[in-house]
Amino acid sequence: MADPLPLNRVRIVLCGTSHPGNIGASARAMKTMGLTTLHLVNPVRFPAADADAMASGAADVLGKAVVCRSIDEALTGTVFAVACTARSRDLSHSVLTARETGVRLACEATRGPVALVFGPEQTGLTAQEVSRCGAIGMIPANPDYSSLNLAAAVQIFAYEVRQAVESVTSYRQETYEVASYEEVELFFRHLEETLYDIEFLDPKQPKRLMQRLRRLFHRARLEREEANILRGILSAAQKPLKRNRGPR
Amino acid sequence: MADPLPLNRVRIVLCGTSHPGNIGASARAMKTMGLTTLHLVNPVRFPAADADAMASGAADVLGKAVVCRSIDEALTGTVFAVACTARSRDLSHSVLTARETGVRLACEATRGPVALVFGPEQTGLTAQEVSRCGAIGMIPANPDYSSLNLAAAVQIFAYEVRQAVESVTSYRQETYEVASYEEVELFFRHLEETLYDIEFLDPKQPKRLMQRLRRLFHRARLEREEANILRGILSAAQKPLKRNRGPR
Repeated sequence: MADPLPLNRVRIVLCGTSHPGNIGASARAMKTMGLTTLHLVNPVRFPAADADAMASGAADVLGKAVVCRSIDEALTGTVFAVACTARSRDLSHSVLTARETGVRLACEATRGPVALVFGPEQTGLTAQEVSRCGAIGMIPANPDYSSLNLAAAVQIFAYEVRQAVESVTSYRQETYEVASYEEVELFFRHLEETLYDIEFLDPKQPKRLMQRLRRLFHRARLEREEANILRGILSAAQKPLKRNRGPR
Repeated sequence: MADPLPLNRVRIVLCGTSHPGNIGASARAMKTMGLTTLHLVNPVRFPAADADAMASGAADVLGKAVVCRSIDEALTGTVFAVACTARSRDLSHSVLTARETGVRLACEATRGPVALVFGPEQTGLTAQEVSRCGAIGMIPANPDYSSLNLAAAVQIFAYEVRQAVESVTSYRQETYEVASYEEVELFFRHLEETLYDIEFLDPKQPKRLMQRLRRLFHRARLEREEANILRGILSAAQKPLKRNRGPR
């Protein structure tokens, strides 16, 4: 039998969902696969009668859904997040199939909470939201019509996570502690600040470079100690500049 | 790439569907996975506006759906059919998981048309309907709540058929050129030099830190452009120091 623990650690994050019915249907899809933690980032309308109707027997999942005001809030405490998207991106992270996503999350969940992040029905996740995640998850679909309904996409990812949790018998033991979402974000903020300080980043067109660097370090999957080392390096790089300029 | 032929041969049969919306949502689920043949056995209401609305971009699938008066009629011409059900049966045939169903249908479809058969939302297939099929397909689900929405079940079976038909395991395309061994080594040398310059590395005990950083960047598997960006950052970090000290 499956260990219930890893499934408890898989959080579904729905960003900017337009139709409450899709929130309810997603809750039902989650529960059929044993997932119970739902975070909603700025839903257009929630709670709502259509959400309750579509949830069917999953009213409990809907009832304890957490409404958040930002993706950062929704991802707080997670150790790994996958951005679920139908479109390929320019600056793609590593792209996992739904099946690979299931296996990866089953492993990562042994270390802490993990998340599957979904965007609004019409537009999907923004590049900035994707950049908050460690990988992109895609459902291999008909290239001529890949537009899955939101709850259908949640259903497939939840299904794959369950299949992976049930079939993975021994998880990889990680000797090092991984950095949390907050620690990684602090590192990125420190990095960006330092790049301005050393005048490597041009404040007029800063965006693309940070995305590239985010992609690189997400791929590396920073450990806590590594994040600390890197921030130490950044501080050391900032020091001579502060010495020059005096206190700011 | 996927051979379109086997997917064309997979027929979805919906028996006695109560809600036209579920017919439309099933058509959409089918099309996202490249399935186009839909047979409806005694639908309660069809055609219907809710079916059209839920079909979204899959109006073509709905438009050529065949309405039948019996399961026998719907299965005419098939060489193999799987009865999709959430409940286990007394008189069970061989029971396949959704994944096994996908593989089996991908094989059988090389011989002729095959079918996935779904019952009404509330009651599922009757024993007699199941007996028309060569096997039972079940989606491994939460034993405490295994009630998938009809279209969600169609989505998962259609997904598994597509995965089985496609031998391609991953979307991942390496669009970026990876850095060569020499480029990576030049980066490490530059990094070490910079760490001395900014006085982060202590020349008396330098070894272990570089090993940690090597481990991190090797894990990330640097691309050529990333190596260049990182070396650009290092140069920018060195510049203010060189300005201070003058030429060395």
